[in-house]
Amino acid sequence: MADTLDDTTVAIFIAQRGTEQVEFTEPKEAVEDAGGTVDVIGAETGEVRTVNNDLEPGDSFQVERTFSEISSDEYDALLVPGGAVGADRLRADENAVRLVREFAEAGKPMGVICHGPWTVIEAGVVDGRTLTSYPSLRTDIRNAGGKWVDEEVVVDQGLVTSRDPDDLPAFCDKIVEEFAEGRH
Amino acid sequence: MADTLDDTTVAIFIAQRGTEQVEFTEPKEAVEDAGGTVDVIGAETGEVRTVNNDLEPGDSFQVERTFSEISSDEYDALLVPGGAVGADRLRADENAVRLVREFAEAGKPMGVICHGPWTVIEAGVVDGRTLTSYPSLRTDIRNAGGKWVDEEVVVDQGLVTSRDPDDLPAFCDKIVEEFAEGRH
Repeated sequence: MADTLDDTTVAIFIAQRGTEQVEFTEPKEAVEDAGGTVDVIGAETGEVRTVNNDLEPGDSFQVERTFSEISSDEYDALLVPGGAVGADRLRADENAVRLVREFAEAGKPMGVICHGPWTVIEAGVVDGRTLTSYPSLRTDIRNAGGKWVDEEVVVDQGLVTSRDPDDLPAFCDKIVEEFAEGRH
Repeated sequence: MADTLDDTTVAIFIAQRGTEQVEFTEPKEAVEDAGGTVDVIGAETGEVRTVNNDLEPGDSFQVERTFSEISSDEYDALLVPGGAVGADRLRADENAVRLVREFAEAGKPMGVICHGPWTVIEAGVVDGRTLTSYPSLRTDIRNAGGKWVDEEVVVDQGLVTSRDPDDLPAFCDKIVEEFAEGRH
Protein backbone atom coordinates (compact mmCIF):
# COMPACT_ATOMS: atom_id res chain seq x y z
CA MET A 1 0.00 0.00 0.00
CA ALA A 2 3.00 2.32 0.51
CA ASP A 3 3.20 5.47 -1.61
CA THR A 4 -0.31 5.03 -3.10
CA LEU A 5 -1.17 8.49 -1.76
CA ASP A 6 1.99 10.42 -2.71
CA ASP A 7 0.87 13.95 -3.70
CA THR A 8 -2.45 13.50 -1.86
CA THR A 9 -3.27 16.05 0.86
CA VAL A 10 -6.10 15.21 3.23
CA ALA A 11 -7.96 17.37 5.77
CA ILE A 12 -9.08 15.59 8.97
CA PHE A 13 -11.57 17.26 11.29
CA ILE A 14 -11.26 17.25 15.08
CA ALA A 15 -13.74 18.82 17.52
CA GLN A 16 -12.75 21.06 20.44
CA ARG A 17 -14.21 18.31 22.64
CA GLY A 18 -15.43 14.76 22.19
CA THR A 19 -13.86 13.36 19.01
CA GLU A 20 -13.41 9.59 19.34
CA GLN A 21 -9.64 9.06 19.52
CA VAL A 22 -9.19 5.89 17.41
CA GLU A 23 -11.51 7.24 14.72
CA PHE A 24 -9.09 10.18 14.45
CA THR A 25 -5.72 8.42 14.83
CA GLU A 26 -6.25 5.26 12.77
CA PRO A 27 -7.58 6.80 9.53
CA LYS A 28 -4.90 9.52 9.81
CA GLU A 29 -2.15 6.89 10.15
CA ALA A 30 -3.59 4.83 7.31
CA VAL A 31 -3.35 7.82 4.94
CA GLU A 32 0.15 8.72 6.17
CA ASP A 33 1.34 5.10 5.88
CA ALA A 34 0.21 5.19 2.25
CA GLY A 35 2.35 8.28 1.63
CA GLY A 36 -0.32 10.97 2.02
CA THR A 37 -0.14 14.21 4.00
CA VAL A 38 -2.82 14.93 6.63
CA ASP A 39 -3.63 18.35 8.13
CA VAL A 40 -5.61 18.50 11.37
CA ILE A 41 -8.44 21.04 11.12
CA GLY A 42 -10.45 22.38 14.06
CA ALA A 43 -12.35 25.42 15.27
CA GLU A 44 -9.21 27.02 16.79
CA THR A 45 -5.51 26.19 16.59
CA GLY A 46 -3.95 24.69 19.73
CA GLU A 47 -4.38 21.50 21.73
CA VAL A 48 -7.69 19.68 21.94
CA ARG A 49 -8.56 16.52 23.83
CA THR A 50 -10.26 13.47 22.36
CA VAL A 51 -12.40 10.81 24.11
CA ASN A 52 -12.46 7.03 24.27
CA ASN A 53 -15.82 5.21 24.15
CA ASP A 54 -17.64 8.55 23.83
CA LEU A 55 -17.06 9.70 27.45
CA GLU A 56 -13.63 8.76 28.85
CA PRO A 57 -10.84 11.34 28.44
CA GLY A 58 -8.45 10.58 25.58
CA ASP A 59 -5.12 12.10 24.54
CA SER A 60 -4.50 15.64 23.33
CA PHE A 61 -3.78 16.56 19.71
CA GLN A 62 -2.68 19.71 17.95
CA VAL A 63 -5.08 21.57 15.65
CA GLU A 64 -2.96 22.88 12.76
CA ARG A 65 -5.46 24.96 10.76
CA THR A 66 -9.02 26.18 11.27
CA PHE A 67 -12.32 25.48 9.53
CA SER A 68 -12.71 29.17 8.73
CA GLU A 69 -9.28 29.62 7.13
CA ILE A 70 -9.14 26.64 4.78
CA SER A 71 -10.79 26.04 1.42
CA SER A 72 -11.65 22.64 -0.02
CA ASP A 73 -9.50 23.65 -3.05
CA GLU A 74 -6.38 23.06 -0.93
CA TYR A 75 -7.22 19.41 -0.24
CA ASP A 76 -7.81 16.21 -2.20
CA ALA A 77 -9.96 14.42 0.38
CA LEU A 78 -11.65 14.80 3.76
CA LEU A 79 -11.89 12.66 6.92
CA VAL A 80 -14.60 13.15 9.57
CA PRO A 81 -14.32 11.05 12.77
CA GLY A 82 -17.15 10.36 15.22
CA GLY A 83 -17.66 10.42 18.96
CA ALA A 84 -21.21 11.52 19.78
CA VAL A 85 -20.22 14.79 21.46
CA GLY A 86 -17.49 15.62 18.95
CA ALA A 87 -19.70 14.97 15.92
CA ASP A 88 -22.49 17.01 17.54
CA ARG A 89 -20.02 19.92 17.93
CA LEU A 90 -18.72 19.61 14.34
CA ARG A 91 -22.21 19.82 12.84
CA ALA A 92 -22.79 23.02 14.80
CA ASP A 93 -19.79 24.74 13.14
CA GLU A 94 -20.97 26.47 9.97
CA ASN A 95 -17.51 26.44 8.39
CA ALA A 96 -17.01 22.71 9.03
CA VAL A 97 -20.39 22.10 7.39
CA ARG A 98 -19.51 24.40 4.46
CA LEU A 99 -16.34 22.37 3.85
CA VAL A 100 -18.24 19.06 3.81
CA ARG A 101 -20.65 20.57 1.27
CA GLU A 102 -17.75 21.82 -0.89
CA PHE A 103 -15.98 18.44 -0.90
CA ALA A 104 -19.24 16.68 -1.77
CA GLU A 105 -20.12 19.12 -4.56
CA ALA A 106 -16.59 18.88 -6.01
CA GLY A 107 -16.88 15.07 -6.10
CA LYS A 108 -13.83 14.73 -3.83
CA PRO A 109 -13.61 11.55 -1.74
CA MET A 110 -14.61 11.67 1.95
CA GLY A 111 -14.28 9.11 4.77
CA VAL A 112 -16.90 9.59 7.49
CA ILE A 113 -17.35 7.20 10.41
CA CYS A 114 -19.70 6.50 13.34
CA HIS A 115 -21.52 9.75 14.40
CA GLY A 116 -19.55 11.70 11.74
CA PRO A 117 -22.40 11.55 9.16
CA TRP A 118 -24.39 14.18 11.14
CA THR A 119 -22.07 16.70 9.45
CA VAL A 120 -23.02 15.27 6.05
CA ILE A 121 -26.74 15.58 6.96
CA GLU A 122 -26.13 19.17 8.05
CA ALA A 123 -24.43 19.93 4.71
CA GLY A 124 -27.57 18.77 2.90
CA VAL A 125 -25.76 16.25 0.71
CA VAL A 126 -27.27 12.95 1.92
CA ASP A 127 -30.33 12.93 -0.35
CA GLY A 128 -30.22 10.01 -2.80
CA ARG A 129 -26.99 8.52 -1.42
CA THR A 130 -26.40 5.20 0.33
CA LEU A 131 -24.46 5.24 3.59
CA THR A 132 -23.96 3.62 6.96
CA SER A 133 -23.22 5.18 10.37
CA TYR A 134 -23.49 4.47 14.08
CA PRO A 135 -26.96 2.86 14.16
CA SER A 136 -28.52 5.68 16.21
CA LEU A 137 -28.21 8.01 13.17
CA ARG A 138 -30.23 5.67 10.92
CA THR A 139 -33.48 7.62 11.23
CA ASP A 140 -31.75 11.00 10.74
CA ILE A 141 -30.10 9.70 7.54
CA ARG A 142 -33.38 8.29 6.20
CA ASN A 143 -35.22 11.53 7.05
CA ALA A 144 -32.51 13.40 5.11
CA GLY A 145 -33.32 11.31 2.02
CA GLY A 146 -30.47 8.82 2.28
CA LYS A 147 -30.55 5.02 2.15
CA TRP A 148 -29.08 3.58 5.38
CA VAL A 149 -27.49 0.13 5.29
CA ASP A 150 -25.97 -1.99 8.06
CA GLU A 151 -22.52 -2.86 6.61
CA GLU A 152 -18.95 -2.44 7.88
CA VAL A 153 -18.04 -0.12 5.02
CA VAL A 154 -20.13 1.50 2.27
CA VAL A 155 -18.94 3.54 -0.73
CA ASP A 156 -21.25 5.84 -2.73
CA GLN A 157 -19.61 8.16 -5.30
CA GLY A 158 -16.48 8.55 -3.19
CA LEU A 159 -18.31 8.87 0.15
CA VAL A 160 -16.88 6.11 2.39
CA THR A 161 -18.86 5.43 5.61
CA SER A 162 -18.55 2.95 8.50
CA ARG A 163 -20.48 2.25 11.71
CA ASP A 164 -18.05 2.29 14.66
CA PRO A 165 -14.44 1.62 15.77
CA ASP A 166 -14.78 -2.14 15.09
CA ASP A 167 -15.09 -1.28 11.39
CA LEU A 168 -11.80 0.69 11.31
CA PRO A 169 -9.72 -1.98 9.47
CA ALA A 170 -12.22 -2.10 6.56
CA PHE A 171 -12.73 1.70 6.70
CA CYS A 172 -9.00 2.46 6.57
CA ASP A 173 -8.42 0.09 3.61
CA LYS A 174 -11.30 1.64 1.70
CA ILE A 175 -10.38 5.30 2.30
CA VAL A 176 -6.86 4.68 0.97
CA GLU A 177 -8.33 3.01 -2.12
CA GLU A 178 -10.90 5.77 -2.75
CA PHE A 179 -8.51 8.62 -1.97
CA ALA A 180 -6.07 7.12 -4.51
CA GLU A 181 -8.81 7.14 -7.16
CA GLY A 182 -9.37 10.88 -6.62
CA ARG A 183 -12.43 12.80 -7.81
CA HIS A 184 -15.65 11.01 -8.72
CA MET B 1 -47.27 25.89 42.99
CA ALA B 2 -47.41 23.30 45.84
CA ASP B 3 -49.78 20.35 45.43
CA THR B 4 -50.68 21.18 41.81
CA LEU B 5 -49.50 17.70 40.85
CA ASP B 6 -51.07 15.63 43.65
CA ASP B 7 -52.18 12.32 42.08
CA THR B 8 -49.83 12.85 39.11
CA THR B 9 -47.24 10.14 38.44
CA VAL B 10 -44.40 10.95 36.05
CA ALA B 11 -41.80 8.73 34.36
CA ILE B 12 -38.34 10.27 33.88
CA PHE B 13 -35.81 8.61 31.58
CA ILE B 14 -32.13 8.23 32.41
CA ALA B 15 -29.49 6.64 30.17
CA GLN B 16 -26.93 4.07 31.32
CA ARG B 17 -24.35 6.71 30.44
CA GLY B 18 -24.31 10.35 29.51
CA THR B 19 -27.55 11.93 30.75
CA GLU B 20 -26.99 15.62 31.60
CA GLN B 21 -27.32 15.81 35.40
CA VAL B 22 -29.19 19.12 35.85
CA GLU B 23 -31.62 18.22 33.07
CA PHE B 24 -32.48 15.13 35.13
CA THR B 25 -32.47 16.55 38.68
CA GLU B 26 -34.16 19.94 38.17
CA PRO B 27 -37.28 18.83 36.26
CA LYS B 28 -37.63 15.87 38.69
CA GLU B 29 -37.48 18.22 41.68
CA ALA B 30 -39.92 20.67 40.09
CA VAL B 31 -42.51 17.91 39.70
CA GLU B 32 -41.90 16.62 43.23
CA ASP B 33 -42.06 20.14 44.71
CA ALA B 34 -45.48 20.49 43.08
CA GLY B 35 -46.67 17.31 44.82
CA GLY B 36 -46.11 14.82 41.99
CA THR B 37 -44.45 11.40 42.12
CA VAL B 38 -41.52 10.65 39.78
CA ASP B 39 -40.21 7.18 38.87
CA VAL B 40 -36.72 6.89 37.35
CA ILE B 41 -36.78 4.63 34.28
CA GLY B 42 -33.68 3.17 32.59
CA ALA B 43 -32.46 0.20 30.59
CA GLU B 44 -31.55 -1.79 33.75
CA THR B 45 -32.23 -1.24 37.46
CA GLY B 46 -29.23 -0.19 39.58
CA GLU B 47 -26.93 2.82 39.71
CA VAL B 48 -26.09 4.88 36.65
CA ARG B 49 -23.84 7.91 36.35
CA THR B 50 -24.79 11.21 34.76
CA VAL B 51 -22.54 13.86 33.15
CA ASN B 52 -22.05 17.60 33.47
CA ASN B 53 -21.52 19.68 30.31
CA ASP B 54 -21.86 16.54 28.16
CA LEU B 55 -18.48 15.02 29.11
CA GLU B 56 -17.51 15.54 32.76
CA PRO B 57 -18.54 12.80 35.22
CA GLY B 58 -21.64 13.62 37.26
CA ASP B 59 -23.28 11.94 40.26
CA SER B 60 -24.86 8.49 40.38
CA PHE B 61 -28.61 7.87 40.50
CA GLN B 62 -30.77 4.82 41.05
CA VAL B 63 -32.84 3.38 38.18
CA GLU B 64 -36.11 2.19 39.75
CA ARG B 65 -37.89 0.53 36.82
CA THR B 66 -36.96 -0.45 33.26
CA PHE B 67 -38.12 0.68 29.82
CA SER B 68 -39.17 -2.87 28.97
CA GLU B 69 -41.28 -3.44 32.09
CA ILE B 70 -43.38 -0.27 32.17
CA SER B 71 -46.40 0.79 30.14
CA SER B 72 -47.42 4.36 29.43
CA ASP B 73 -50.80 3.45 31.02
CA GLU B 74 -49.12 3.59 34.45
CA TYR B 75 -48.00 7.22 34.05
CA ASP B 76 -49.59 10.62 33.51
CA ALA B 77 -46.58 12.33 31.92
CA LEU B 78 -43.02 11.77 30.68
CA LEU B 79 -39.69 13.61 31.10
CA VAL B 80 -36.73 13.09 28.73
CA PRO B 81 -33.43 14.84 29.65
CA GLY B 82 -30.57 15.52 27.26
CA GLY B 83 -26.81 15.14 27.28
CA ALA B 84 -25.57 14.27 23.77
CA VAL B 85 -24.32 10.79 24.69
CA GLY B 86 -27.27 9.98 26.96
CA ALA B 87 -29.88 11.09 24.43
CA ASP B 88 -28.04 9.15 21.71
CA ARG B 89 -28.26 6.03 23.91
CA LEU B 90 -31.95 6.57 24.72
CA ARG B 91 -32.96 6.78 21.06
CA ALA B 92 -31.19 3.47 20.44
CA ASP B 93 -33.42 1.67 23.02
CA GLU B 94 -36.50 0.37 21.25
CA ASN B 95 -38.56 0.27 24.45
CA ALA B 96 -37.70 3.85 25.38
CA VAL B 97 -38.78 4.90 21.88
CA ARG B 98 -41.99 2.82 22.12
CA LEU B 99 -42.88 4.64 25.35
CA VAL B 100 -42.35 8.08 23.78
CA ARG B 101 -44.64 7.03 20.92
CA GLU B 102 -47.30 5.75 23.37
CA PHE B 103 -47.29 8.96 25.43
CA ALA B 104 -47.53 11.07 22.26
CA GLU B 105 -50.35 8.98 20.78
CA ALA B 106 -52.28 9.07 24.07
CA GLY B 107 -51.99 12.88 24.13
CA LYS B 108 -50.18 12.75 27.49
CA PRO B 109 -47.88 15.68 28.29
CA MET B 110 -44.13 15.30 27.82
CA GLY B 111 -41.18 17.53 28.77
CA VAL B 112 -38.15 17.01 26.51
CA ILE B 113 -35.01 19.16 26.70
CA CYS B 114 -31.72 19.74 24.85
CA HIS B 115 -30.68 16.58 22.91
CA GLY B 116 -33.75 14.73 24.29
CA PRO B 117 -35.86 15.36 21.14
CA TRP B 118 -33.83 12.73 19.21
CA THR B 119 -36.04 10.20 21.02
CA VAL B 120 -39.14 12.03 19.74
CA ILE B 121 -37.73 11.93 16.20
CA GLU B 122 -37.03 8.21 16.59
CA ALA B 123 -40.64 7.64 17.72
CA GLY B 124 -41.86 9.22 14.48
CA VAL B 125 -44.09 11.79 16.20
CA VAL B 126 -42.39 15.06 15.20
CA ASP B 127 -44.20 15.54 11.87
CA GLY B 128 -46.38 18.67 11.91
CA ARG B 129 -45.36 19.76 15.43
CA THR B 130 -43.45 22.84 16.58
CA LEU B 131 -40.54 22.33 18.95
CA THR B 132 -37.15 23.56 20.06
CA SER B 133 -34.02 21.63 21.10
CA TYR B 134 -30.26 22.00 21.42
CA PRO B 135 -29.55 23.88 18.16
CA SER B 136 -27.52 21.02 16.64
CA LEU B 137 -30.77 18.96 16.31
CA ARG B 138 -32.48 21.66 14.24
CA THR B 139 -31.88 19.98 10.88
CA ASP B 140 -32.91 16.53 12.20
CA ILE B 141 -36.17 18.00 13.51
CA ARG B 142 -36.91 19.79 10.23
CA ASN B 143 -36.07 16.66 8.21
CA ALA B 144 -38.53 14.74 10.43
CA GLY B 145 -41.29 17.18 9.41
CA GLY B 146 -41.22 19.40 12.50
CA LYS B 147 -41.04 23.17 12.75
CA TRP B 148 -37.94 24.19 14.79
CA VAL B 149 -37.99 27.48 16.68
CA ASP B 150 -35.30 29.20 18.77
CA GLU B 151 -37.17 29.92 22.04
CA GLU B 152 -36.48 29.08 25.70
CA VAL B 153 -39.62 26.96 25.98
CA VAL B 154 -42.16 25.80 23.39
CA VAL B 155 -45.47 23.97 23.95
CA ASP B 156 -47.28 22.07 21.18
CA GLN B 157 -50.24 19.88 22.21
CA GLY B 158 -48.65 19.01 25.55
CA LEU B 159 -45.12 18.55 24.18
CA VAL B 160 -42.89 20.95 26.16
CA THR B 161 -39.38 21.48 24.74
CA SER B 162 -36.37 23.63 25.67
CA ARG B 163 -32.86 24.19 24.27
CA ASP B 164 -30.32 23.67 27.07
CA PRO B 165 -29.70 23.93 30.85
CA ASP B 166 -30.01 27.75 30.78
CA ASP B 167 -33.68 27.27 29.87
CA LEU B 168 -34.41 25.07 32.93
CA PRO B 169 -36.30 27.71 34.97
CA ALA B 170 -38.78 28.31 32.11
CA PHE B 171 -38.89 24.58 31.27
CA CYS B 172 -39.63 23.53 34.87
CA ASP B 173 -42.43 26.11 35.26
CA LYS B 174 -44.03 25.00 31.99
CA ILE B 175 -43.89 21.24 32.64
CA VAL B 176 -45.65 21.68 35.98
CA GLU B 177 -48.35 23.76 34.26
CA GLU B 178 -48.82 21.31 31.38
CA PHE B 179 -48.63 18.19 33.57
CA ALA B 180 -51.38 19.72 35.77
CA GLU B 181 -53.58 20.19 32.70
CA GLY B 182 -53.27 16.48 31.87
CA ARG B 183 -54.17 14.93 28.50
CA HIS B 184 -54.45 17.06 25.37
